[in-house]
Amino acid sequence: MAQPGEKRKREDDTNNGGTEDKDNAAREVENPLPGFRLSAVLRESARDKTIFLHGQVSGDDEAKEDAVVILERAPFQAESVSDLLGKNPPMTLQLKNDIYGVYHLSPPPELNEVKATVIRPATEKHIKKYLRQEVYLIQESGEDYKNITLPFIQAQSFSIQWVYNILEKKAEADRIVYENADPENGFVLLPDFKWNQKQVEDLYLIAICHKRGIKSLRDLTADHLPLLRNIMKEGKEAILKRFGLQGNQLRIYLHYQPSYYHLHVHFTALGHDAPGTTVERAHLLNDVIQNIEMDSRYYETRTLTYALREDEALLKSFKDAGKF
Amino acid sequence: MAQPGEKRKREDDTNNGGTEDKDNAAREVENPLPGFRLSAVLRESARDKTIFLHGQVSGDDEAKEDAVVILERAPFQAESVSDLLGKNPPMTLQLKNDIYGVYHLSPPPELNEVKATVIRPATEKHIKKYLRQEVYLIQESGEDYKNITLPFIQAQSFSIQWVYNILEKKAEADRIVYENADPENGFVLLPDFKWNQKQVEDLYLIAICHKRGIKSLRDLTADHLPLLRNIMKEGKEAILKRFGLQGNQLRIYLHYQPSYYHLHVHFTALGHDAPGTTVERAHLLNDVIQNIEMDSRYYETRTLTYALREDEALLKSFKDAGKF
Repeated sequence: MAQPGEKRKREDDTNNGGTEDKDNAAREVENPLPGFRLSAVLRESARDKTIFLHGQVSGDDEAKEDAVVILERAPFQAESVSDLLGKNPPMTLQLKNDIYGVYHLSPPPELNEVKATVIRPATEKHIKKYLRQEVYLIQESGEDYKNITLPFIQAQSFSIQWVYNILEKKAEADRIVYENADPENGFVLLPDFKWNQKQVEDLYLIAICHKRGIKSLRDLTADHLPLLRNIMKEGKEAILKRFGLQGNQLRIYLHYQPSYYHLHVHFTALGHDAPGTTVERAHLLNDVIQNIEMDSRYYETRTLTYALREDEALLKSFKDAGKF
Repeated sequence: MAQPGEKRKREDDTNNGGTEDKDNAAREVENPLPGFRLSAVLRESARDKTIFLHGQVSGDDEAKEDAVVILERAPFQAESVSDLLGKNPPMTLQLKNDIYGVYHLSPPPELNEVKATVIRPATEKHIKKYLRQEVYLIQESGEDYKNITLPFIQAQSFSIQWVYNILEKKAEADRIVYENADPENGFVLLPDFKWNQKQVEDLYLIAICHKRGIKSLRDLTADHLPLLRNIMKEGKEAILKRFGLQGNQLRIYLHYQPSYYHLHVHFTALGHDAPGTTVERAHLLNDVIQNIEMDSRYYETRTLTYALREDEALLKSFKDAGKF
């Protein structure tokens, strides 16, 4: 749903800081992909208008370095496209049949932004993460979690320094939409990288809890109900206040498996078909709260279903344990 | 009617005719949207990068005329984007954190085509067809089900004669993939209409139980465990035998709300992003079985979350009951 007013408001905010020079200076950067050469297309989606590339670039000392580049076209903004159409832009006819016509239109560059996410240097793990693979469902019992998944997570020791940077305001502090600073039951709420904040139609925010050591859904017990209820209630309120979407227009959920093992909750616009909202990955926060209220050990003992790609190391652990 | 995939196919056909001069001549046209003024945004998808607009244009005799305009950004082509990245295009930094950077890139116009489908003159029917309805989440408690939803279902008396025709072999008998004929714990398995059966990538079958009167998830108790386990086990076996997909490559789930009130279970290929697989509509059969094993009255008492469109009659019932 287009909320042109909202859009304008946020753009104005950006320009209202009075620090325009500083902002502009911060935006001038050297090319992040010097000497880029494509190694492989990891994945692409014609529906989503995204492409995931693995390439090599020249590093600081001219040594080659791996990079992952994710390109995604921008969603349309109603106001700017209707302005454009009102100005009689050149349109090339492709076909015409009765009342239907198909044309090609090349809007000016400012209406054609592409978002480029660059991961550099990229490790083998990053490259694998984006490579399209066959997927399989795992039925992980409480015992499987203790014997297979937990040791796997501990052995991997994924870095979540970037999460701590956010919580400690060492990075992205200006992006925080809301904070409850309580170390036990507090959290920060900020826009997900996937959302450009220009339209609420694909609104996507993440609540990250302050407390460390809650790895995932599996660790949640009745002790965490105050935290979960805070995220539910205050997250909805903050989103209503800042972006004008009501609580019943939001899908609020956790991932299992999550992509990083520090508890976080996803908030997406209900009308937005965001990735990771399918039943084999998403768990509604409302259901999670109900389940823990019913049985504090629900997520310790429950068999949880999720999908793993063929090349994921965790699948290998299940295979090694004779469970796949 | 605009079906983007369909249209793309037809464009290729048009260009293959070997009548290039004629084609080029045909491509020079006057502006199809003279004096375009936006009336409404009918629908947009940030994920698909599409927007559906209703506008008014100046007709032949200067009278105003309704038009529907559908804009869709082009998918990326690997070759052209990797060429572009190799040429050090200007990229504007949006944010940087550790090894991750997000940039904006404005590719040249030839890499930024937008497909515009124009329907003109558009009737009321065209406009309604593309109008997106707002969706809202409902939290339906066990009491809400008894007081609002059940009376609504009973009053509607949706016809499910077509389901009985299948179960009695009066229709679609040749499409049945598998049957367990037990009247209490049996079911028929057949392909969903959405699946053309030509490739397993988007495999989609439905299991319909023989027993009548089980309207939905809400009616399931421990009495139905043998039926549910049969559907799970025999459904997987039949699909492996006929289509070669293993049980762990299948997403097996129920809808709540379902689209018809006779118990049925969906089987889709795990890699297929089928409609109705999001967490606010789909319930994994494996979870349903576990929940009933734990508490036979789970689905009688549980608060269930689902989405309703603004114009759906059930939403009106919730409004009338003061629950929305």
